[in-house]
Amino acid sequence: MHVYEFQDMMRQIYFHHDSKRGAEGTYLWLVEEVEELDEAIKGRDKKALEDEFADVLAWLASLANVVGINLEEVTMAKYNQKCPKCQSKPCQCTQSFTALPLGQH
Amino acid sequence: MHVYEFQDMMRQIYFHHDSKRGAEGTYLWLVEEVEELDEAIKGRDKKALEDEFADVLAWLASLANVVGINLEEVTMAKYNQKCPKCQSKPCQCTQSFTALPLGQH
Repeated sequence: MHVYEFQDMMRQIYFHHDSKRGAEGTYLWLVEEVEELDEAIKGRDKKALEDEFADVLAWLASLANVVGINLEEVTMAKYNQKCPKCQSKPCQCTQSFTALPLGQH
Repeated sequence: MHVYEFQDMMRQIYFHHDSKRGAEGTYLWLVEEVEELDEAIKGRDKKALEDEFADVLAWLASLANVVGINLEEVTMAKYNQKCPKCQSKPCQCTQSFTALPLGQH
């Protein structure tokens, strides 16, 4: 399934809820699911891991619908067969991009 | 582009970095990007918003590659043309699912 098709399917299933909840509330759900993904990774539970990856992508699509972003378009505009920083595939970046994000050490 | 094609493209560009960084470090990057998405939403900057949605999806795909999850498969297994809770499209759920997540009020 194309990324835009998935986003459209999420719109058909959830937009009546998502638009009422708004960007802030939908973002909080996304954060909640990202936290649950962490628990699933640490718990090494395959079924929970599958569920949580699905939920994070679903809530990301819901949030994109609420704020009017086409996920596939913006992602392909930035990551089109190469790293947007070094313009290479595979990525040749050697700096902080490959390590942990700032402030997370 | 199919979800699995995007995930595979991320593998080709970044897996040498992602596998070395590991699940925990890659998860921290995902969290960092989710936080930047919040700033972009609050800042109402269209270009930043597009960039951050792309980054969150990219890091989610990287993390899925590290832990061996096929994003498209698990998402379609859970969200296949209907809400997994009420089995309807549009979703007919009336409970907490439609409000803010627990502990976030």
